[in-house]
Amino acid sequence: MRDPLLLTPGPATTDIAVKAAMLRDWGSWDDDFRAVTADIRRRLLAILGPAGRDFACVPMQGSGSFVVEAMLGTLVPADGKALVLMNGAYGQRIARTLRVMGRAPVVLDTGDYLPPTPEQVDALLHEDAAITHVVVVHCETSSGILNPVEAIAEVVARHGRRLLVDAMSSFGALDLDPGRIRYDAVVASANKCLEGVPGFGWALVRRDALEQGAGNAHSLSLDLFDQWRHMEATGQWRFTPPTHVVVALAAALDAYEAEGGLTGRGARYEANRAALVEAMAAIGIRPFLEADVMSPIIVTFRCPKDPAFDFPTFYQAVKRRGFMLYPGKLTEAETFRVGCIGQVTPADMRAAVAAMADACAEMGVHLP
Amino acid sequence: MRDPLLLTPGPATTDIAVKAAMLRDWGSWDDDFRAVTADIRRRLLAILGPAGRDFACVPMQGSGSFVVEAMLGTLVPADGKALVLMNGAYGQRIARTLRVMGRAPVVLDTGDYLPPTPEQVDALLHEDAAITHVVVVHCETSSGILNPVEAIAEVVARHGRRLLVDAMSSFGALDLDPGRIRYDAVVASANKCLEGVPGFGWALVRRDALEQGAGNAHSLSLDLFDQWRHMEATGQWRFTPPTHVVVALAAALDAYEAEGGLTGRGARYEANRAALVEAMAAIGIRPFLEADVMSPIIVTFRCPKDPAFDFPTFYQAVKRRGFMLYPGKLTEAETFRVGCIGQVTPADMRAAVAAMADACAEMGVHLP
Repeated sequence: MRDPLLLTPGPATTDIAVKAAMLRDWGSWDDDFRAVTADIRRRLLAILGPAGRDFACVPMQGSGSFVVEAMLGTLVPADGKALVLMNGAYGQRIARTLRVMGRAPVVLDTGDYLPPTPEQVDALLHEDAAITHVVVVHCETSSGILNPVEAIAEVVARHGRRLLVDAMSSFGALDLDPGRIRYDAVVASANKCLEGVPGFGWALVRRDALEQGAGNAHSLSLDLFDQWRHMEATGQWRFTPPTHVVVALAAALDAYEAEGGLTGRGARYEANRAALVEAMAAIGIRPFLEADVMSPIIVTFRCPKDPAFDFPTFYQAVKRRGFMLYPGKLTEAETFRVGCIGQVTPADMRAAVAAMADACAEMGVHLP
Repeated sequence: MRDPLLLTPGPATTDIAVKAAMLRDWGSWDDDFRAVTADIRRRLLAILGPAGRDFACVPMQGSGSFVVEAMLGTLVPADGKALVLMNGAYGQRIARTLRVMGRAPVVLDTGDYLPPTPEQVDALLHEDAAITHVVVVHCETSSGILNPVEAIAEVVARHGRRLLVDAMSSFGALDLDPGRIRYDAVVASANKCLEGVPGFGWALVRRDALEQGAGNAHSLSLDLFDQWRHMEATGQWRFTPPTHVVVALAAALDAYEAEGGLTGRGARYEANRAALVEAMAAIGIRPFLEADVMSPIIVTFRCPKDPAFDFPTFYQAVKRRGFMLYPGKLTEAETFRVGCIGQVTPADMRAAVAAMADACAEMGVHLP
């Protein structure tokens, strides 16, 4: 009996070599662990390509949302003003984080499934000269939508404002070359497209922006500047790192690089998405989003209209067949989600769809 | 070749069963993982004994310092005032955390190696009626000192103020029965005396104090109230949990309970400390603290006076012999530290001392 494959937006299914890397204990103060930290920081920066040379990698303990909060707290000063582009739960969380910090944002909410357009951003930046930062979610996993970061970056740069990117669920699979896309910082976490296990994330920040962030943070734990300065000076994390999880990421980066890095990983996820959408179409289950904004990270599907369908029963039936799906998060339609990331292949996606068809048959759900 | 034993204040050496528990992937949304979360919350509360019934367990992602910050941010309101009892780096960090949050504390600094006395606390609370909270570190690992939490709690309760306890390095090995010691909250983390791996911690908070903490937090990520409310409502963590690390703690709790819980774990650490101090005395290396304030968690020793001794060389020589020591953190004397926690026994402590003697001989350090 193998564990079910995780078809979620992460934590995803990881390679056994990644998990096996956790079978040792490390001294967080010891040279051997400092070398691991230096190694992963260098390799994460390398994913940005040559233009990454102007950036620093600052790992941060906690979940992805902790790293997002650290980025906002360190880079948006108390007298700054952020415009948050919002089309789902993660954009909403960014706005809520800023409000809790007492740095109330301006919000552009395009609803459940529409991307913010460069024209809308342009108009808002024209209107409000006080806006210093724009915050965008690259892939909003609430719907699986891919937001047009490149076009938005161009508008933000033209207005002389600064862009912050939450690339939690896309980093390492979708290109964010800062030589082409102008931003001050991008954040991501270990348990998404790099296929590590959850427990920390990182911000890749332009060094000049990071230096300007000194003294901004609302929190000691979530101060990227302080974490960076300490790490540069000592090679150590300020506070206890999740040693096993960090070492697991080093193993995950071995597999990532062996697969061909950004190109190879991205191509596999694209192939997963294509196999999934095609097989789902064959059984009559259609994606919620249009193809041009659909990410290769996670796909939202409309639930079958048959009244015999209910998601909790469907979820359990598919889980018994070896696959864990993800519930929907949209307000306006009955949906569920299927992730394309982690150690899964197009063959796994087709097997998952066969399991879904089988589960529907068991439930007496008629598929068109 | 086995890995060196970690004789540090944690991350410590863990059992192979704890690490092996990380060889599976879990869906953070799935029922199976919710059951693990419910299970560890219940078992952590049980460590407090019957008086724990008035408390709630709120796990929090990140290192121990993140949980300390979450406790301070959630429980000390913006118009509150905290008295921080400080005799080492962790007390200093608590004061710094409060300053960054804009909740400047009153500080009682008793230096490197003296415990705060109940009389000092009594005088400060008499003097300043605005103090709402007192914050104390149970075992300050900078020196290894054990602070008199019980006597301090009695004074704080008499004044009608509230006590917050940082028991990061003592929880699970030293008794903090809230039926005997009155406090509002105690925080700890997975990688100390419970012998899990690092990546999260928890606050055990009186439910009425937690309810009063609604809306206090300076941070969304580090809001204990919000984390608690969400967990009670859904069984899930608000933001992605470190799934593997959480499951490892469940395995660590199995071993903890099999060892006899607080009593058994505490007794082994006491035996470790006794074996260590006795064997060190036999080679002429003396502890820095007096026996009555020395914790069974970590012991600070004076470096040999011989000019041939230097800690980095000593550290490497002892590491090659299978043991990782910990550097000193005191300003007034040359010291180093040896931890007594983790999967180590009195026999390991004696072997470590033999390795230290051997390393000194190799370095040409004369021991008295």
